[in-house]
Amino acid sequence: MTIDHLVMTNQALIPVIINGAAGKMGREVVKAVAQAPDLTLMGAIDRNPEHQGKDAGELAGLTEPLEVPITDQLEPMLGYVAGERQLPPGVIIDFTHPDSVYDNVRSAIAYGIRPVVGTTGLSPEQIQNLADFAEKASTGCLIIPNFSIGMVLLQQAAITASQYFDHVEIIELHHNQKADAPSGTAIQTAQLLAELGKTFNPAIVEETEKIPGARGSLADEGIRIHSVRLPGLIAHQEVIFGAAGQIYTLRHDTSDRACYMPGVLLAIRKVSQLKSLVYGLEKIL
Amino acid sequence: MTIDHLVMTNQALIPVIINGAAGKMGREVVKAVAQAPDLTLMGAIDRNPEHQGKDAGELAGLTEPLEVPITDQLEPMLGYVAGERQLPPGVIIDFTHPDSVYDNVRSAIAYGIRPVVGTTGLSPEQIQNLADFAEKASTGCLIIPNFSIGMVLLQQAAITASQYFDHVEIIELHHNQKADAPSGTAIQTAQLLAELGKTFNPAIVEETEKIPGARGSLADEGIRIHSVRLPGLIAHQEVIFGAAGQIYTLRHDTSDRACYMPGVLLAIRKVSQLKSLVYGLEKIL
Amino acid sequence: MTIDHLVMTNQALIPVIINGAAGKMGREVVKAVAQAPDLTLMGAIDRNPEHQGKDAGELAGLTEPLEVPITDQLEPMLGYVAGERQLPPGVIIDFTHPDSVYDNVRSAIAYGIRPVVGTTGLSPEQIQNLADFAEKASTGCLIIPNFSIGMVLLQQAAITASQYFDHVEIIELHHNQKADAPSGTAIQTAQLLAELGKTFNPAIVEETEKIPGARGSLADEGIRIHSVRLPGLIAHQEVIFGAAGQIYTLRHDTSDRACYMPGVLLAIRKVSQLKSLVYGLEKIL
Amino acid sequence: MTIDHLVMTNQALIPVIINGAAGKMGREVVKAVAQAPDLTLMGAIDRNPEHQGKDAGELAGLTEPLEVPITDQLEPMLGYVAGERQLPPGVIIDFTHPDSVYDNVRSAIAYGIRPVVGTTGLSPEQIQNLADFAEKASTGCLIIPNFSIGMVLLQQAAITASQYFDHVEIIELHHNQKADAPSGTAIQTAQLLAELGKTFNPAIVEETEKIPGARGSLADEGIRIHSVRLPGLIAHQEVIFGAAGQIYTLRHDTSDRACYMPGVLLAIRKVSQLKSLVYGLEKIL
Repeated sequence: MTIDHLVMTNQALIPVIINGAAGKMGREVVKAVAQAPDLTLMGAIDRNPEHQGKDAGELAGLTEPLEVPITDQLEPMLGYVAGERQLPPGVIIDFTHPDSVYDNVRSAIAYGIRPVVGTTGLSPEQIQNLADFAEKASTGCLIIPNFSIGMVLLQQAAITASQYFDHVEIIELHHNQKADAPSGTAIQTAQLLAELGKTFNPAIVEETEKIPGARGSLADEGIRIHSVRLPGLIAHQEVIFGAAGQIYTLRHDTSDRACYMPGVLLAIRKVSQLKSLVYGLEKIL
Repeated sequence: MTIDHLVMTNQALIPVIINGAAGKMGREVVKAVAQAPDLTLMGAIDRNPEHQGKDAGELAGLTEPLEVPITDQLEPMLGYVAGERQLPPGVIIDFTHPDSVYDNVRSAIAYGIRPVVGTTGLSPEQIQNLADFAEKASTGCLIIPNFSIGMVLLQQAAITASQYFDHVEIIELHHNQKADAPSGTAIQTAQLLAELGKTFNPAIVEETEKIPGARGSLADEGIRIHSVRLPGLIAHQEVIFGAAGQIYTLRHDTSDRACYMPGVLLAIRKVSQLKSLVYGLEKIL
Repeated sequence: MTIDHLVMTNQALIPVIINGAAGKMGREVVKAVAQAPDLTLMGAIDRNPEHQGKDAGELAGLTEPLEVPITDQLEPMLGYVAGERQLPPGVIIDFTHPDSVYDNVRSAIAYGIRPVVGTTGLSPEQIQNLADFAEKASTGCLIIPNFSIGMVLLQQAAITASQYFDHVEIIELHHNQKADAPSGTAIQTAQLLAELGKTFNPAIVEETEKIPGARGSLADEGIRIHSVRLPGLIAHQEVIFGAAGQIYTLRHDTSDRACYMPGVLLAIRKVSQLKSLVYGLEKIL
Repeated sequence: MTIDHLVMTNQALIPVIINGAAGKMGREVVKAVAQAPDLTLMGAIDRNPEHQGKDAGELAGLTEPLEVPITDQLEPMLGYVAGERQLPPGVIIDFTHPDSVYDNVRSAIAYGIRPVVGTTGLSPEQIQNLADFAEKASTGCLIIPNFSIGMVLLQQAAITASQYFDHVEIIELHHNQKADAPSGTAIQTAQLLAELGKTFNPAIVEETEKIPGARGSLADEGIRIHSVRLPGLIAHQEVIFGAAGQIYTLRHDTSDRACYMPGVLLAIRKVSQLKSLVYGLEKIL
């Protein structure tokens, strides 16, 4: 299935609950689920008091209401969807907060609802606990720190290229409202390459910085990351490999949250086929 | 082995003959083989009368002669190398002409010398004949239309990406001495994507060209190729995938024939492990 | 004044009427004028019956109403603003339709209100008539086909570069909802370069298109334009100059209508200092 | 005159001496002068003992000798060319060493030969002294730290753009044999923008570097420079301006010393029209 067609696959309707439905990503997911012919939005959870009772579809900017009101009652909703025996097992997608996601996921698994987690901030211990919990319950669970299929393809292609190239640098470019540098995704790309176990960018001259910082940040295994911040930029990452006589560049540009929806829909469809916790979009591509 | 380290692998010395040793690629190969610690240059063939008897190393620009004179006598050289029983089987690398490469390869296989063919222009029938011939002789043979590891990585990454993206266009940029457009490599990239069997770039509006040619050339399965020609450019290819909210770009820049040498050396080392004809660098990566 | 500071210049409040206030550009202009400390929005005209009487600010997405209702009564509004003698002369900004803009501008000049025209589609004769009309009335009038300061800077830099480079090609990239190719702006860039009176891209080899259209569209004076259309793209233009050993590239990326507002605000402020019709943002930079 | 046509302007033959004729830039200049129909190479100076007496043309790789032998005798050569009364005043182009260029220039001016200086490393005091000296002698003298017309165009376009954009960052990319970062040219670009007297890149969030150096080097007036070093790169500079909704990028790629020759030829032709010292290629464009 391609990014465009992920929306149109026809299967029995999978019931979907969205937790964090009033947030920016939540609203985008509401629209994507509403437009997917094989999914049916059954619940929209959000703890923001301002949005209680509003129609999830209207809040997301759809012209027609979805007749799914926003509620902050997670457990009753899980019980309700779990009780719908004529439908396939339900899926809950979580774009909430680091402080609530762990409990959310445990509750969902307890009810037999498959979690797809987009919220970041779970500790390695928490992830291990959830994996054990899912294992015992034989329930699929997906934790996806980055739903961008394009970015995952870039990272996979970079891993392959790093077996043949010894020199690589990363440039990531974001709008100037982003406070931290390098971006989490760029750091992750460097870590993925570093896992190969070799040291990149062996020096052939002794480098001197005439102005400190010129050569960027030194991430794992000799990989350098440069962070550009400018208004007008959105979110961009470039991985540049070099060898004698050639340059090989991988670049990903994000201009809209819509780019995450094919990954979200893929995860919703794949999680029901799993019996345990799986981490990372690349595992289900 | 990475592009940088391919040069330094230590094994028993493989005897190498270069056919077309006085040409541009041939000279580059002479240098690369001379510097590879596991290879030994035993013969340098070229039919250009101007260069007969010259030292292959000096012609290639090395400061020291290699004591390997250029000759146009292919068969005696094949016999000589085939007779060196204490060495591993010899390899002949062919950067000659479409009109002689077929016979060159048959002669080499007859002597038990493994051919690595960089010369283009063999017909599908000729390739099939050579495959049959190599099969019968249980002799490895490599036909490599493009020795650039970076370009092969780009094409492989593009094939993977095309499973998830439905929209793709190719821009190739070359110096203005290149007469044909699109470039052979760009056409090949489009063919590789087209082999997936789907049609790319379904239109959502009816397109109008206000000036003919604006939308580029229509290659296989809806893929468009745009060819830019300017002095100052060398050889560049860009494959651009698009989906809602994101762009994923793969780009390869070639600035020097040196970029082909890691692929040439890899082929020389791999061909001895083969028992039949293999086509394409991607098969041995 | 820079793009960022154009918003903050302090002067006596200039009264502004927006015609086409309910359209996409109109709403953006409502927001920009509301936030400019030296401008005051006095009227919001739109002929769309659906929006009559709505608050222009709320329609534009501002959290507070501006207390300026949308109306379709142009002449009374012109008269009202013209009567405000204690304020500087008023400005009307027109983002309406080709079929009404000519009359709109004449009416405004008749009332002594300065027009800033963003609507395209005026014929050369109409522009000449309006110029005569403005001349007689000694009233400033600006017709601005492109309010993007960045694009105008690119075009001006390209004109300068084209005096020194003989080879240039243009690549423009847009989302795949754009039906026409090349883009109007790219054609305009080519025309600006062609006005220098020399022929670009003299061939040094005889070019062959193996697939028709590969070399793009042939615009004025030998300049080639290539048009890429993909979802995920927004609006991008690249002008590439080449000469022996070097490439000089100018690129402009548009990601949001906000990019036109510095040009709109500049035009509103400059038009009051003019006594006649001026065409093009580059004339007031 | 364009970059291509600078070579073909027809005038009375200007006698040219090249000092540093056996160096990399010197050899390139020998070829360019030999091919220019309005120039005649009369002297080739180089202090390298290895090349004394060799033909300058053959050393530069021309197929025909120029009948101009390399010599280390500067003063006699200056006297010889100064004595050719039937020719226009001579020009000496200096690509030598920081330790000899000052004396070379004084000697040339003393003989009435116009210096064009490509050697870097003159101190501000030395430049001032030479300016005084040239002024008294009413002799033109050009000091050109960068002969790349494309780079000067980029810098001039950047200066113009910086009047309208408040946010700008620079990325320069070079091969990994370059030891210092940022490149001198990138630092110079930042200085040219800083001379406008405003501070760029006002922060709207408090930035945090999770890995030191991520945000690059902080050059003059808030401008950041990022330096990438990879084999396969040659010499590239990118100046990126950002504002709400738009990005404007200027990029220059150098792939060959040939790119400096149009600037060198322009300087040779222009210096004879000057009566004093002029600094920088931008002054004669």
